Amino acid sequence: MALRVGVIGGGQLARMMIAPAVELGLDLRVLAEGEGMSAQLAATAVGDYHDLETVRAFVADVDVVTFDHEHVPQDILRALVADGVAVHPGPDALQFAQDKLVMRARLADLGVPQPDWAAVASEQELQSFLDAHDGQGVVKTPRGGYDGKGVRVVRAASDARDWFAAVPAGEALLVEELVPFVRELAQQVARRPSGEIAAYPVVETVQRDGVCAEVIAPAPAAAERLVEVAESIGIRIAEGLGVTGMLAVELFETDDERILVNELAMRPHNSGHWSQDGAVTGQFEQHLRAVADLPLGSTAPRAPWSVMVNILGGPAEGGLGERFASAMVAHPEAKIHTYGKDPRPGRKVGHVNVSSSDLDDAVYVARAAAAHFA
Amino acid sequence: MALRVGVIGGGQLARMMIAPAVELGLDLRVLAEGEGMSAQLAATAVGDYHDLETVRAFVADVDVVTFDHEHVPQDILRALVADGVAVHPGPDALQFAQDKLVMRARLADLGVPQPDWAAVASEQELQSFLDAHDGQGVVKTPRGGYDGKGVRVVRAASDARDWFAAVPAGEALLVEELVPFVRELAQQVARRPSGEIAAYPVVETVQRDGVCAEVIAPAPAAAERLVEVAESIGIRIAEGLGVTGMLAVELFETDDERILVNELAMRPHNSGHWSQDGAVTGQFEQHLRAVADLPLGSTAPRAPWSVMVNILGGPAEGGLGERFASAMVAHPEAKIHTYGKDPRPGRKVGHVNVSSSDLDDAVYVARAAAAHFA
Repeated sequence: MALRVGVIGGGQLARMMIAPAVELGLDLRVLAEGEGMSAQLAATAVGDYHDLETVRAFVADVDVVTFDHEHVPQDILRALVADGVAVHPGPDALQFAQDKLVMRARLADLGVPQPDWAAVASEQELQSFLDAHDGQGVVKTPRGGYDGKGVRVVRAASDARDWFAAVPAGEALLVEELVPFVRELAQQVARRPSGEIAAYPVVETVQRDGVCAEVIAPAPAAAERLVEVAESIGIRIAEGLGVTGMLAVELFETDDERILVNELAMRPHNSGHWSQDGAVTGQFEQHLRAVADLPLGSTAPRAPWSVMVNILGGPAEGGLGERFASAMVAHPEAKIHTYGKDPRPGRKVGHVNVSSSDLDDAVYVARAAAAHFA
Repeated sequence: MALRVGVIGGGQLARMMIAPAVELGLDLRVLAEGEGMSAQLAATAVGDYHDLETVRAFVADVDVVTFDHEHVPQDILRALVADGVAVHPGPDALQFAQDKLVMRARLADLGVPQPDWAAVASEQELQSFLDAHDGQGVVKTPRGGYDGKGVRVVRAASDARDWFAAVPAGEALLVEELVPFVRELAQQVARRPSGEIAAYPVVETVQRDGVCAEVIAPAPAAAERLVEVAESIGIRIAEGLGVTGMLAVELFETDDERILVNELAMRPHNSGHWSQDGAVTGQFEQHLRAVADLPLGSTAPRAPWSVMVNILGGPAEGGLGERFASAMVAHPEAKIHTYGKDPRPGRKVGHVNVSSSDLDDAVYVARAAAAHFA
C-alpha cells in the first residue's frame, strides 16, 4: 500500500505537494480549512486544525503528518505525538517557527549570527533598546506574523504603543536592530528524521512591501565563502532545532559581509519555488521525501540561473485562466504555476519560473510572463 | 472558472496529466474504467467508455475531452461531436490511430515514407506478399493492438492461419515488409486545434519483447538531416491527419539511412516520458495545452542528454514503495515516476528519468535506479 502523507492546511504549499506525490506514488491527504482551497484535489477532510478531535480523525488514516503552515497549536501537536503519530516537523522544532522570541533565544544558544534583539515588555524597555541602536528598530509580534504582517519599523517606543496594549500580561514583544543589509538571501535545507541533510544553493530574494516578489537562484555574485557560510548556518539550524522536512532560513547580507538570520520557515517556502523547475529535486518533492524519511534527492540546479517571480493580486477583472494564452504565446519557456485562488489585491495567486544560461534573460522573461497576470 | 479538461481512461497517461494540470490551474476530470486506477486522484466518474450515455454524462461538465488511450469507439466519438462537444483528438484523426490499414492508406496518400504494406484477406494474398519480400513479413491486426500485441513476424502464410480465422468477413489483416532497421526512433509533435505545431527532438527508443524499454533523448549520433526528416514527417502527419494534442510517430531508421513510419499514437506516449524532466515543457503539460488550445510551450531540452528507463513488472514481492529508499539513496539525481499499479510480470508500473551532460552516465544511472524496482 502506498505511504500516506497527511498535510494539515489546504493552501498553495499543500497544493504544490500534489504533483510530486503523484509521481512518487505517495497517497497525499489534505485537511483543508474549507471547501475550494488551493489543495482541493487532495483534500480528504475539511475542518478546523485548532480542534483536536478533527485533527485526530484526519490523522487516523495517515502514516505521517506534515503541514501547509506553522499555525497548528502546540497542544494539538503534542497530543498527536503522545498518540504515537509521526509528526514532521515535530512540536519541539515547530515552536521555534511559531514564536520568534523562542527562536531568537535558541539561535543565540547555537551561536548563529543574528541581529541584536531583545524581549521588551514595555515602552520603557523598547526605548532603552532603541537608544542603544541609533534610535531605531524593528518590532515584531512573536506569534502569528507572516508576509510582513506583525512587523513594524519604529523610531520611538510610542510607535508600538498599540501593540503593547494588545500584548497579554506577562508576555513581551520582540525588537531587533534595523540591519543595514545590502540584500536578502534565503537558504533552503532539507532534513530527514534519520538525520540526512541536503542543502540547496543560497538564493537572493527581493521583497516588496514585506512580501517576496522575486527570487534568483543561485544568489548572483555570491563569493564562495558566503555560499559556504549560508549553507553552514542552514545546517546548524536544521540540526540544532531538530527540523524535519524543508527549512527555509531568510538571511540578511550586510555591507560588511556578515550574514544574519532574519526569519525561519519549517516547510516549503516561497524562496524555494524556483526549485520546482530549476533544481533536480524541487522543494515540494524534497519535503515529501524528508517527512516520509525517504532518501533526499539531488539539490543540483538544472540550469545556471533560475528566476521566480510571484504573481501578486492577479487581474483586476476575470480569473488567471484568461491570461494564460497571452503569457504562454509570448513566453513559451516560462513555467506558470497557479494556486487556484481568486484574484485579490496583494494576494499570492501564482508564480512563474524561468531557467536560462543567461541571468538577464531569465529575469526579463519571468517578469514579463508574470506581468500578463497583473 | 478554471477550464475543465475531461480525460477518458484512467491509466498512467491520465495520471501523469494530473501534475501539470494542477500547476496550470486546469480542472482535470477523469472517466476511469474502475476504482483504484492509476489516475484515481482525478477520477470524477467511473464507467464504461463503450456506453454512450456514460460518456455523455461524464462530458456534460467539461470544456474539452481528451484521452488516456485510443480505444473509444468511433460511433461514441462522433455522437459527442454531434452533441457539440470539443473532442481532441477528434474522430477523424483518431480513426488513423485506431485502424492501421486506414493509417497505412492515408500515409501513402500523404507520401510519407513507410514500409511496403498490403491489406491481405487470405493466406493466398499474404503468401503473395511474402513471396515478393524475401519470404517474410510482419502481420498486424488492424485494430486493438498495443505494446507488441497483435503483431507477429511470419515466414509462411500459414503462420497467420489463426488470425485469418478470426477476421470478420469482409475485413483484412495488414502485412508489412520486415524492415531491416538499425534502430528505432520516435518523433513527438504537439498540435493545437488552431494549427500551432511544436516538435520535440527525435529520440531513440529501445524495445524489448515488443515493449518500450529505454528512450534516449535526443537520438544519439543523429545527423542533422535525420533530425530534420523526422521532424518533417511528424509535422506532415500531424497536419495531414488533423491531429490535436500530442502525436508520437514511431520510426525505423534503416541501414541505408531511410526513415520509415512504424506506428502512430495520438496521445502522450512512452517514448515521450523523458520530457517530463528533460524538456522545458513535458509532453503531459504540452498535451493539456494543445487540447485546451492554449499556446504550446518550449520543447527545448533542459540538459544535453535525458534517458528514460521503464520499470517493467515491478518487484516479485511487495510494492514499489518498499524499493524507493534503496533506489533514492543510491541515485539522488534519478526522477522516479510510479503509476500506482500493483506489480505484475511485464506490466509498465513506472519509469525513471535521468538527465546529464554525459550520456553514458545518464544511461547507467537510469538503468541502475530502475533495477532497484525489479
